[in-house]
Amino acid sequence: MARNNKILILLGDGMGGRPVPELDGLTVIEAATTPALDLLARDGACGMLSPISLGVPPGSDTAHMAVLGYNPYEFYRGRGPFEAKGVGLDVNPGDVAFRCNFSTVDATDGRTVLDRRAGRINSGTDQLRQAINEQIAEIDGVQILFRESVEHRCALVLRGEGINEFVTEVDPHSDPAPGEAGEPYHDCRPLPGHEEDPAARFTAEVVNKFVRRCFEVLNDHEVNRQRVAEGKLPANIALPRGVGTAVHLEPFATKYGLNGAMVVEVDLVRGLAMYLGMTVINAPGASGGRDTDEISIAETVELALTDHDFVLANIKAPDLGGHDHDIEQKIGAVKKVDSAVAYLLDRLDFNSTVMMLAADHCTPVTVGDHSGDPIPAVFYGHGVTPDQVQSYGERACAGGYMGHFIGADVMNILTNYSGSREKFGA
Amino acid sequence: MARNNKILILLGDGMGGRPVPELDGLTVIEAATTPALDLLARDGACGMLSPISLGVPPGSDTAHMAVLGYNPYEFYRGRGPFEAKGVGLDVNPGDVAFRCNFSTVDATDGRTVLDRRAGRINSGTDQLRQAINEQIAEIDGVQILFRESVEHRCALVLRGEGINEFVTEVDPHSDPAPGEAGEPYHDCRPLPGHEEDPAARFTAEVVNKFVRRCFEVLNDHEVNRQRVAEGKLPANIALPRGVGTAVHLEPFATKYGLNGAMVVEVDLVRGLAMYLGMTVINAPGASGGRDTDEISIAETVELALTDHDFVLANIKAPDLGGHDHDIEQKIGAVKKVDSAVAYLLDRLDFNSTVMMLAADHCTPVTVGDHSGDPIPAVFYGHGVTPDQVQSYGERACAGGYMGHFIGADVMNILTNYSGSREKFGA
Repeated sequence: MARNNKILILLGDGMGGRPVPELDGLTVIEAATTPALDLLARDGACGMLSPISLGVPPGSDTAHMAVLGYNPYEFYRGRGPFEAKGVGLDVNPGDVAFRCNFSTVDATDGRTVLDRRAGRINSGTDQLRQAINEQIAEIDGVQILFRESVEHRCALVLRGEGINEFVTEVDPHSDPAPGEAGEPYHDCRPLPGHEEDPAARFTAEVVNKFVRRCFEVLNDHEVNRQRVAEGKLPANIALPRGVGTAVHLEPFATKYGLNGAMVVEVDLVRGLAMYLGMTVINAPGASGGRDTDEISIAETVELALTDHDFVLANIKAPDLGGHDHDIEQKIGAVKKVDSAVAYLLDRLDFNSTVMMLAADHCTPVTVGDHSGDPIPAVFYGHGVTPDQVQSYGERACAGGYMGHFIGADVMNILTNYSGSREKFGA
Repeated sequence: MARNNKILILLGDGMGGRPVPELDGLTVIEAATTPALDLLARDGACGMLSPISLGVPPGSDTAHMAVLGYNPYEFYRGRGPFEAKGVGLDVNPGDVAFRCNFSTVDATDGRTVLDRRAGRINSGTDQLRQAINEQIAEIDGVQILFRESVEHRCALVLRGEGINEFVTEVDPHSDPAPGEAGEPYHDCRPLPGHEEDPAARFTAEVVNKFVRRCFEVLNDHEVNRQRVAEGKLPANIALPRGVGTAVHLEPFATKYGLNGAMVVEVDLVRGLAMYLGMTVINAPGASGGRDTDEISIAETVELALTDHDFVLANIKAPDLGGHDHDIEQKIGAVKKVDSAVAYLLDRLDFNSTVMMLAADHCTPVTVGDHSGDPIPAVFYGHGVTPDQVQSYGERACAGGYMGHFIGADVMNILTNYSGSREKFGA
């Protein structure tokens, strides 16, 4: 079969939604002016995507896994491994991984959290990491891997026998209100139902020792002494959360015989891409924020498609408006997705490219969080059977040719259109 | 996430159907005047529900299990345990349970069935049960639990080692025609394919001994001597059928973190509710018959929702017309469901309640039994995206926003709308 047709998945993060009273009962997508998305719908095959299954609210990690054909019920054991991989740490199956924050605790007790983000520290964390790497290489026979990311963010990997992910978070997830005393960080404990599990108990012990050792190593570190001298909060501890155990995921290239790349703005999804052995490409100006440069993302996708069979791109902005209940921001962010599509319609050859435009999940402004509502989706380009749907939106796409489908269908549909798939049977 | 939004499932039992020639090719639902159901459809999100999977005719028990998220292929091993639980018997995983009838057999042979319902006996069965409990507490090491229900109905539980549900029915399922001799009850035997299974052979032996002992205990019982004196048929035996093995089902409250109740008219479904640890509420005047008081059912639902997170209600009447090929009766029964919905639309706050209106299965008047046709369903209330469907019915709902979905999706969809569900992933 021909393999020269390209595949593109473009996801507007959290773009799907629900009717908004302030928009006369339209959804944000329905209300936004989106000529390029509507053109896709007019000339494409529409449907409703539920990445995991109808009604199940996905995370960004599980949604992207599902759309790429990795069943999260089988392969998802927490976000930690993707976070750690995204930070550049080596992660092996069996490792237990966490994302962490450099944080500030009261220097007198080493325990009361004053600022979960250590005054949003943005320099010197490489030196703090180095001190941790040198002085906490191992705890009770468990190897400790630790690395910093941007600002206060960092990640921790435990490697050894007899550990697992059934433990609680250390990060208390809240800063003290102005003028109030902070609360202590949480001890790591076995999760409810795992109290007697020796691996969970041992893992919790190792984590607690790591956190205490961090304070000992960091509190008097030169970087922090200087920060205090400058009136800044010291990054005198690292607080783990978002635990997960690394499992083996078949590399994307092996699973599909496709050379794949991701152009994404979210660390977590970038980590998934690295975990799957895909090329990770950063678009200049892709900030992951409201002001992201969507045209730069589209240009980067165009470039990536010249030397990859498959590209997945995600524009984060619509999710932000959803989480913040910010209707106007989300409308603007949907228009950014529309602009990126307009660019791609102009530049790509859809005689030899097939594309799915969708979202990884809904983040309705009426909810302020991910929801399990089905997501409007369009297939467009090589091989696609256009249907009668005339515009891109939740209700319009529900009447489309593809009906309701789930994440596990997506790669099958796309590789069917691209011709990069053998028939099953004779 | 907010947990204060309520969830209601209202099922018109057997309500779905097929085109009826006498109704000019409309289905019963399409032909019935149902302003409240049509309002739901207009302002709700419609779709087609197949509780088990498309084309599979469900029983009432498997349909309710599936809609509540308990996969019947995994967890259903016969109706007996639900019947026994509904009668108030204690049922443990591993028990083998039957529903039974008090019946009349020829006193001279103790074997020829004269009336499967013992002249529809409606008093004294508690004394008959007491005699059985006292005199047949155990057979070959297997503990015998037995209890009466209303009229001639009763249930039997076997508890012990080395038993299973792969055995045939004792009840012959037919009464002699007027003027004809009856047929003997059936010996319990291992099911075809289980002839060599020691547990099935032993179970059949125990059942056969139980039935013979019943006749010995009951035939000369005071209650029966008096019945005979009054010219009534004696309840001189109990005939088991509907065998099943009890399995562990995760309690509803644990599975969903929701405090659930059922308002149902059918013993079998009531038994399922008890099995799942849900509150069972009887509505006054809810007869399970054609004359049931549907407003009382609606009032009871309204009340149940004041102190439960989740209520499932079932109105039995439409199923009766379906089984009896009675078009007019079924139209009237569908209107009863409409009246109940009208009451609920008036009384419930659908800003904080989400509802699914559907059926547990179709019972087409053209078939006279359950069928595997998809069931028209509407989601209405909190969070729902209304679609373009304008009336409630099989063909109208097939064009709705929800597309085709299965029982396993229902609780996901509803908990997504109610907000009582965490996202899967990060």
